[in-house]
Amino acid sequence: MKKTILFIIFTCLLTSMFAQTPSVQRINPSNWWVGMKNPKLQLLVYGKNIAGSDVKINYQGVTLEKVNQVENPNYLFLDLNIAPNTQAGQMLIELSKNIKVQKGKKSVVDQMVKITYPFQLKVRDQKHQEINSKDFIYLILPDRFANGDPSNDKFADMADPESDRKNPFLRHGGDLLGVQNHLDYIKELGATTIWLNPVVENNQPQTNEGEAMRSAYHGYGFTDHYNVDKRLGGNEAYKKLIEAAHAKGLKIIQDAVYNHVGINHWILKDLPMKNWLNQWDTYTNTSYRDEPVVDILHGSAADFKVQQNGWFVPFLPDLNHKNEFVANFLIQHALWTVENFGIDGWRIDTYQYNDLNFMNRCNAALAEEYPKMFITGENSVQSAYSQAYFAKNNLNVPFKSTLPSANDFVLFNAINDALNQGFDWGKGFNRLYSTLAMDALYEDANLNMTFLDNHDMDRFYSVIGEDFNKYKLGVGFLLTTRGVPHLYYGTENLTKNFKNPSDAEVRKDFEGGWADDKINKFLASGRTEKENEAFDFVKKLANYRKTSEAITTGKLTQFLPQDGIYVYFRYTDSQTVMVIMSQSKDDKNLDTQRFAERMSDFTSAKNIMTDSSVGDLKSLKIPAMSITVLELQK
Amino acid sequence: MKKTILFIIFTCLLTSMFAQTPSVQRINPSNWWVGMKNPKLQLLVYGKNIAGSDVKINYQGVTLEKVNQVENPNYLFLDLNIAPNTQAGQMLIELSKNIKVQKGKKSVVDQMVKITYPFQLKVRDQKHQEINSKDFIYLILPDRFANGDPSNDKFADMADPESDRKNPFLRHGGDLLGVQNHLDYIKELGATTIWLNPVVENNQPQTNEGEAMRSAYHGYGFTDHYNVDKRLGGNEAYKKLIEAAHAKGLKIIQDAVYNHVGINHWILKDLPMKNWLNQWDTYTNTSYRDEPVVDILHGSAADFKVQQNGWFVPFLPDLNHKNEFVANFLIQHALWTVENFGIDGWRIDTYQYNDLNFMNRCNAALAEEYPKMFITGENSVQSAYSQAYFAKNNLNVPFKSTLPSANDFVLFNAINDALNQGFDWGKGFNRLYSTLAMDALYEDANLNMTFLDNHDMDRFYSVIGEDFNKYKLGVGFLLTTRGVPHLYYGTENLTKNFKNPSDAEVRKDFEGGWADDKINKFLASGRTEKENEAFDFVKKLANYRKTSEAITTGKLTQFLPQDGIYVYFRYTDSQTVMVIMSQSKDDKNLDTQRFAERMSDFTSAKNIMTDSSVGDLKSLKIPAMSITVLELQK
Repeated sequence: MKKTILFIIFTCLLTSMFAQTPSVQRINPSNWWVGMKNPKLQLLVYGKNIAGSDVKINYQGVTLEKVNQVENPNYLFLDLNIAPNTQAGQMLIELSKNIKVQKGKKSVVDQMVKITYPFQLKVRDQKHQEINSKDFIYLILPDRFANGDPSNDKFADMADPESDRKNPFLRHGGDLLGVQNHLDYIKELGATTIWLNPVVENNQPQTNEGEAMRSAYHGYGFTDHYNVDKRLGGNEAYKKLIEAAHAKGLKIIQDAVYNHVGINHWILKDLPMKNWLNQWDTYTNTSYRDEPVVDILHGSAADFKVQQNGWFVPFLPDLNHKNEFVANFLIQHALWTVENFGIDGWRIDTYQYNDLNFMNRCNAALAEEYPKMFITGENSVQSAYSQAYFAKNNLNVPFKSTLPSANDFVLFNAINDALNQGFDWGKGFNRLYSTLAMDALYEDANLNMTFLDNHDMDRFYSVIGEDFNKYKLGVGFLLTTRGVPHLYYGTENLTKNFKNPSDAEVRKDFEGGWADDKINKFLASGRTEKENEAFDFVKKLANYRKTSEAITTGKLTQFLPQDGIYVYFRYTDSQTVMVIMSQSKDDKNLDTQRFAERMSDFTSAKNIMTDSSVGDLKSLKIPAMSITVLELQK
Repeated sequence: MKKTILFIIFTCLLTSMFAQTPSVQRINPSNWWVGMKNPKLQLLVYGKNIAGSDVKINYQGVTLEKVNQVENPNYLFLDLNIAPNTQAGQMLIELSKNIKVQKGKKSVVDQMVKITYPFQLKVRDQKHQEINSKDFIYLILPDRFANGDPSNDKFADMADPESDRKNPFLRHGGDLLGVQNHLDYIKELGATTIWLNPVVENNQPQTNEGEAMRSAYHGYGFTDHYNVDKRLGGNEAYKKLIEAAHAKGLKIIQDAVYNHVGINHWILKDLPMKNWLNQWDTYTNTSYRDEPVVDILHGSAADFKVQQNGWFVPFLPDLNHKNEFVANFLIQHALWTVENFGIDGWRIDTYQYNDLNFMNRCNAALAEEYPKMFITGENSVQSAYSQAYFAKNNLNVPFKSTLPSANDFVLFNAINDALNQGFDWGKGFNRLYSTLAMDALYEDANLNMTFLDNHDMDRFYSVIGEDFNKYKLGVGFLLTTRGVPHLYYGTENLTKNFKNPSDAEVRKDFEGGWADDKINKFLASGRTEKENEAFDFVKKLANYRKTSEAITTGKLTQFLPQDGIYVYFRYTDSQTVMVIMSQSKDDKNLDTQRFAERMSDFTSAKNIMTDSSVGDLKSLKIPAMSITVLELQK
């Protein structure tokens, strides 16, 4: 908003005007592009009393097809069509309105007020890259990773003016420059892609969530879709980060939130129409339950409505996706973001709580303009059926989701169980085996985004009781099974904690990200010996993974876990990688005859983690509680 | 076999014959019918040295299309075609073979041996009835229910000559007449259908299974497909039972075993060919794991082979369904059984261990001749995906099962969890709700056979800690949710026990089924007060269920369990039944506003269990740990 210039041209001199004098405060999207595949564009125009204006756009190739007036006279929604060969440039949007003007003390006369608003149509310069199972994603909570610019930690003019590293619930000053400053660290680790928790402005007040007053440092309460939060560095810092990341061969996933906005979103102050939001007579929370949506046979309408239209929390008002203007607003914001910043991937928050038909429209709109776009959705569900239902799947059900990638909570649960349970019928590694055995539910399970923990979860290293063998098993599995793996920042150096007493515990600052940090874990010298062992484990395997066609795009064949040992193979015609995970308490000699269908062509192997050779494949020495990754050789 | 008449007609008088003189010991099927939709019939002919015989069948309408010789010269497989208008009657099968005969002391001459075997082609008189969700099935282990004929308890000429009620592992003498004698009891309870554990001859020796020598009283080791075990009363008793049951409006489900036979099956003594069985170099047990079959993306061939071809236990040799002669033998036996006895339903044991393409052929063959046939398969699996995979489902997978009904182990597990867990996130009644929420996986979940326990399980009443409120919740749920419910004999009178130390513990004799029993639980006077309360609970609800279109064929709408209370509705256009299950420890007043979508047409209700009226539906008094079944009224 700050960058747009508002011209108000009066047709004549006036001594005074009535209160209804129109003005334009903002237009969203804040700009657009020529050459989009979809020629349609709906501009949200916000300004005092603009309803009733005559709107004109005189720009070669652009047709104003409809002016939509809504409940609130401060809005107009303009339906534009941008012809294929339209040239880039500044398009003027002219609003004219007759208003009553006091002339002298007694007479009121009609006066024409004309507003001209410049709107940029730019040339597309979008170079987004494909993200898929070849990638390894590093998840960062920007406020908690590194403070590149201490001057933007807080702003007195924002609803939450505080920043205080000593308070786990307030902002800590991390920002996008901080991320940019550590791209080499991320690259060294072997990650190819960065997923940032949301960067869009969260000009939210602090909220009282029981334990304490809390800042919206997590980023999930948008207050202006077209601004990156200035405490993170704003739009410019985001652009620079992405350019720098791309220059290093790293890709960026944006965290998208369609379901809700922050209670302090500008549009909340003056809603275009009541049903912009899902309104309830009394505050109604969502049930946080997926079943009312996926239970297409028995689910009740009442539960469906609460799940879909109930609010996520009281300070995150729920958007009504069935409102066409809302839908257009959100879809266009997604396109604008990808085009403007050059985003490579799109992670959709709280996917199941969105209107699913609307989500399909969003996905289709992104896919139309960016066919390579990786779109992955969060559904914290228990059943593989449900997880599949929300993504592209192999179910014959009336609703067909177009979400290419599910955040794989079902496998996440299995990993935790697998590592913390002893080996038994239906337990331990059998949980991994059984979970992958349901992969036919998905159209492509290798696009599922897999993980050990995230910003909403207990830290992986704590979940597994700070057992370093389990750590290597978990990370090793993550990086060698099917899927698009992500690691939550800090997991590579054994960062721990449970969410108890609050989720702030699992969102601690990355040590070394702040100038006054005494320890710098971005450097080997700042890490303990064990942390370096962990870091090097991830680094070694992730960098091998990058080069391994078998692990990233190959098939997977898994064998029934037996005697505490789970064996699987990733393979293409030209490469075979054998993974042996043991949760046995004893060292074992593994007779490999059972695996002949995948091993019979090979006579030796290279141990990827140790770089040593294995000369005899008939029987393998498998240490207790270990993972062995072998590239088989002829 | 005992009823067939063997004519051996010599073409001339002989003084002696060489050992290779042919003879016919049996033909399977033991008879057939005219008017079958499938005109094909493959007769297995077993007899000494019959290979090389010239075979002739001179019967109007019957064509002998092919005589198949196999590895073992004691078998011929005759491919017949029976034309549509063929008349019933006795068809003679003539085998002629030239053999060398010693004539006098020195000379050997050729002699023609001719064998004529009469084979009955009967008129179809099959009156099987449809079994579906309107039914309520009572499962009986015939040896353990009632001894109608003490004269057939044991036979000295059988491989296991013992019968001893004092030994839990041996036969106890229960039989089909015993079942027949108590049809009124079963009918009084409200059951409509009887499923008997297998009745086919199990002329097995006792086997040593660790704890003790055991009889094959369970019935799962067939030794002659065409004879019902004579200790149960043989074919005649089975026919009589079914006729008597039909006369009382009761239906019969046969327990079918395709996967294996008993180690003492007659064919095992002289296999037609080596690959009649799934052979292994060293004994190989199945893994008892479904994943190698349903994991169509990642499953290994080695694990698939072990699952499919591994033996169930050492004394149940595994049949090779890929052998066409085996396949025909089993399919024809199924058709013969249904046609011969008038079976109404078909329960298939260990479904997942059978070759699934073969199972589809079996199902299709039954469906072709008996379109109303209820076919239900046992798959003791953990995941709904897997359970659906083995049945008719809504999965886009290359293999499409034709099994109409899954034995619902997934819901069974959920019921146990639901009743034994406290109400919590993902626990207690949420397990019921979440499990039914996956019903879209099945083509018709209302055909799933639902249960609380069976002959292989801990007894339901013990599993729930002998808690009578949980008992009513479990039985009440079973009889009002979707599916085709079955009850295991004795559950109606609170029979208890865990399988520990052995499954014989859950297969105890029904008290009153033996003449010398001091207590007779077939009579109210023989049951304790609490047992009568249980019996009457089942009886009341099952008999109501019989008449309730809503419960049996109506839709189901379920509401998210809240505060320990789970509410669902069964309904058609003309009837609505509301079920309220509470696992709260406190009595509650239930505000019904949330259920308006299903209740708003109604003003009062009849409580089905108490016959009392409920005048106000706005708020319902729900006792702690209770089930309330209301038929809503306008």
